[in-house]
Amino acid sequence: MSTATAMKDRSLLGLKDISREEILSILDRAAYWESQSEKLVPVLNRKFAVNMFFENSTRTRFSFEMAQKRLGVQVMNFSAAASSVEKGESIYDTVRTLESMGVDAGVIRLKPSGVLQELAERINIPLINAGDGNNEHPTQALLDLYTMRKVFGELKGLTVSIIGDIKHSRVARSDLWALQKLGAKVQYCAPPSMAAPELAEHAPYVSMDEALKADVVMMLRVQLERHNEGLFKSTAEYREQYGLTEKRAASLSGHTIIMHPAPVNRNVEIDDAVVECERSLIFKQMAHGVPVRMAVMERALKD
Amino acid sequence: MSTATAMKDRSLLGLKDISREEILSILDRAAYWESQSEKLVPVLNRKFAVNMFFENSTRTRFSFEMAQKRLGVQVMNFSAAASSVEKGESIYDTVRTLESMGVDAGVIRLKPSGVLQELAERINIPLINAGDGNNEHPTQALLDLYTMRKVFGELKGLTVSIIGDIKHSRVARSDLWALQKLGAKVQYCAPPSMAAPELAEHAPYVSMDEALKADVVMMLRVQLERHNEGLFKSTAEYREQYGLTEKRAASLSGHTIIMHPAPVNRNVEIDDAVVECERSLIFKQMAHGVPVRMAVMERALKD
Amino acid sequence: MSTATAMKDRSLLGLKDISREEILSILDRAAYWESQSEKLVPVLNRKFAVNMFFENSTRTRFSFEMAQKRLGVQVMNFSAAASSVEKGESIYDTVRTLESMGVDAGVIRLKPSGVLQELAERINIPLINAGDGNNEHPTQALLDLYTMRKVFGELKGLTVSIIGDIKHSRVARSDLWALQKLGAKVQYCAPPSMAAPELAEHAPYVSMDEALKADVVMMLRVQLERHNEGLFKSTAEYREQYGLTEKRAASLSGHTIIMHPAPVNRNVEIDDAVVECERSLIFKQMAHGVPVRMAVMERALKD
Repeated sequence: MSTATAMKDRSLLGLKDISREEILSILDRAAYWESQSEKLVPVLNRKFAVNMFFENSTRTRFSFEMAQKRLGVQVMNFSAAASSVEKGESIYDTVRTLESMGVDAGVIRLKPSGVLQELAERINIPLINAGDGNNEHPTQALLDLYTMRKVFGELKGLTVSIIGDIKHSRVARSDLWALQKLGAKVQYCAPPSMAAPELAEHAPYVSMDEALKADVVMMLRVQLERHNEGLFKSTAEYREQYGLTEKRAASLSGHTIIMHPAPVNRNVEIDDAVVECERSLIFKQMAHGVPVRMAVMERALKD
Repeated sequence: MSTATAMKDRSLLGLKDISREEILSILDRAAYWESQSEKLVPVLNRKFAVNMFFENSTRTRFSFEMAQKRLGVQVMNFSAAASSVEKGESIYDTVRTLESMGVDAGVIRLKPSGVLQELAERINIPLINAGDGNNEHPTQALLDLYTMRKVFGELKGLTVSIIGDIKHSRVARSDLWALQKLGAKVQYCAPPSMAAPELAEHAPYVSMDEALKADVVMMLRVQLERHNEGLFKSTAEYREQYGLTEKRAASLSGHTIIMHPAPVNRNVEIDDAVVECERSLIFKQMAHGVPVRMAVMERALKD
Repeated sequence: MSTATAMKDRSLLGLKDISREEILSILDRAAYWESQSEKLVPVLNRKFAVNMFFENSTRTRFSFEMAQKRLGVQVMNFSAAASSVEKGESIYDTVRTLESMGVDAGVIRLKPSGVLQELAERINIPLINAGDGNNEHPTQALLDLYTMRKVFGELKGLTVSIIGDIKHSRVARSDLWALQKLGAKVQYCAPPSMAAPELAEHAPYVSMDEALKADVVMMLRVQLERHNEGLFKSTAEYREQYGLTEKRAASLSGHTIIMHPAPVNRNVEIDDAVVECERSLIFKQMAHGVPVRMAVMERALKD
């Protein structure tokens, strides 16, 4: 029982219920991994991890797999589309099966929100949340914090604007919980249909003009596929009102950085030319995802 | 030619045509692997295996992959859905291609029954049957035997009831052949529409009440998707007549164990509360699958 | 910049724009790898490669994966069907993401022709073309040349007939460019609907009778799924006019070899009995694919 509890402490289900110290400890360890010149440091080559994507992802799965393989972890992958989960097998049974087989940790992405917590209570191996519905995406937020800290030295006192589809964004939530713990100020900007009213008590909603005055401007992917209610006549209209256009990007303060959890909709929430402009750290974020996930996997798997 | 023949002896196509001694030898070797404290014993790291699933499976594929990786085998995976087999390429051509590339052994799951034997005759590398239609699923039966032997010490004299969709079950067949060779008595229990008349000469069909008196009660997944003929008005009706309900489970003799090849349909052929009750060995079976498959892969690949 | 340029020199986008010396150097290195008795030579175990198949393939992906793993390369796979590319993410963004994560080389198969060159100009890691539309398939042509050279000692002076769907064949193109550089004569044979007029200035179109007089008779897969215009009433009619029937195979000169890039349509462009007859090198070609791709991956990844 105490072993099971200790194992659960190695899980990473979200950033809402984790301490400031834990977050800093992961960021520090990520810095250690980023500083290594050797790409392969197989210290965990006797450990087995499984990446379970019940919702497809290229980026996140590869980032975890790269992190795992750099540490020598034995990796097994599956995406729901190619699995017997289609047969109506429950997610719990699938994860429990993998646990029974001797897997040491699981990385898991789930479509529904709120299922993961319950799942984790019934499983004894560490679970890493790779995105659960619109609830949390802790490793994405950790790499965001890592990127900001690398630019600004510390997070305390920073103003971070998160712009776009807040309602459906797990990143907007995980970033909020973590940034506030580390003393940064978070503000949201969203069209009414994409706002999450329940978050208003934690972070103010500001206008687009106000949002652009922040130290960090983080654009979110517009889930156009989820918003077919016709609130915007076109992606052009969305871009005009809430997009980080070239013109808006040019108006940003000199020290302001641009971020995006990707994948981007070029010329919708962010202009094509802005994605790879000098102040955009979008591809740097992806690069940082690997050492951050190495730190998270190491925390889950080390003896 | 003699090398090719020797290679074929390392195949595992089914348990019907294999000797009692071969079965015991695999079970003994599985016990050796289960007793190892080291998870990674890369004695086969110069060998290449391919897992070819022409029918999807999470559980079986992962169990094989885990077994292979624990032995250090270089593993390549494919499921038919993501392969050019869709283009109308024959299964023979696919397997022959992999053989040409230097793969040392193939694990294969096939939808149609009876194709595997013919395939194996035309291929020179060892092939391991991971389930072919309703014909055989030898590694599942081996892990069943392994589990029973671990509980009861030996298989001789045991009575094993296999309950449910016998007609479509490769497990019901592989278990029959193997258990009888080792001196256990097999009996089936199935609704008429799910009985396999051709097996009646090998094992008696008994009533549900009779079936529950056995040492081992093995429930089979009801392939509801295959039985839409409306013989049962509902899954509730099936459960009432042939399900291992909590009530029935409570009536079992003190030493009787419950098994299931999984995935389970909770509250159809087995009640939710029974799946993880003390006398259920369902997740233990899954755990045993790994050392059993290590023994099978080692047999196929060792020099 | 000079590093980026050097990295691009390690790409293999096609054989049209590569020198005779480069081709020979790859073939020589492939011969070295084929001569190795050890299957695993993990000289590149600190390198990460990703196989990106935006069009499904069993054969080519496995051949690359086998080659990579024999060299110890850390391999990550994805096929478009299971990736977020479905979400409308651009191919460039996907590849750029993988580059950002620290992948050292990418193997890529793309459906559209001509996209790859543009992609490679924007990416700094080496890219290996595993088939792009009907443009090029350089590693397939290299293994064809390797196979011919092994049989005939040298390629200079050989006559190679390529028969079938020239229009849609990247193999017909890559083989043309490479064989001509090495002094072989290429001729095509195709029904009018499957001819590529733009290639007529490079290689003559000859009759089936003439084509069969060559040193190498290379049959192409008829992409029946792409030719539903009804030019042939049936596959039987195609076979009669352009298929390598048993009768035609028997009429070939004693030294003539039969090749096919596979997968074959048995009894359409080539008779079942011909596929594995003595003068057919079809499965040898597949075997040679592995050392050829080891040479290509080594060229891309070595320090």
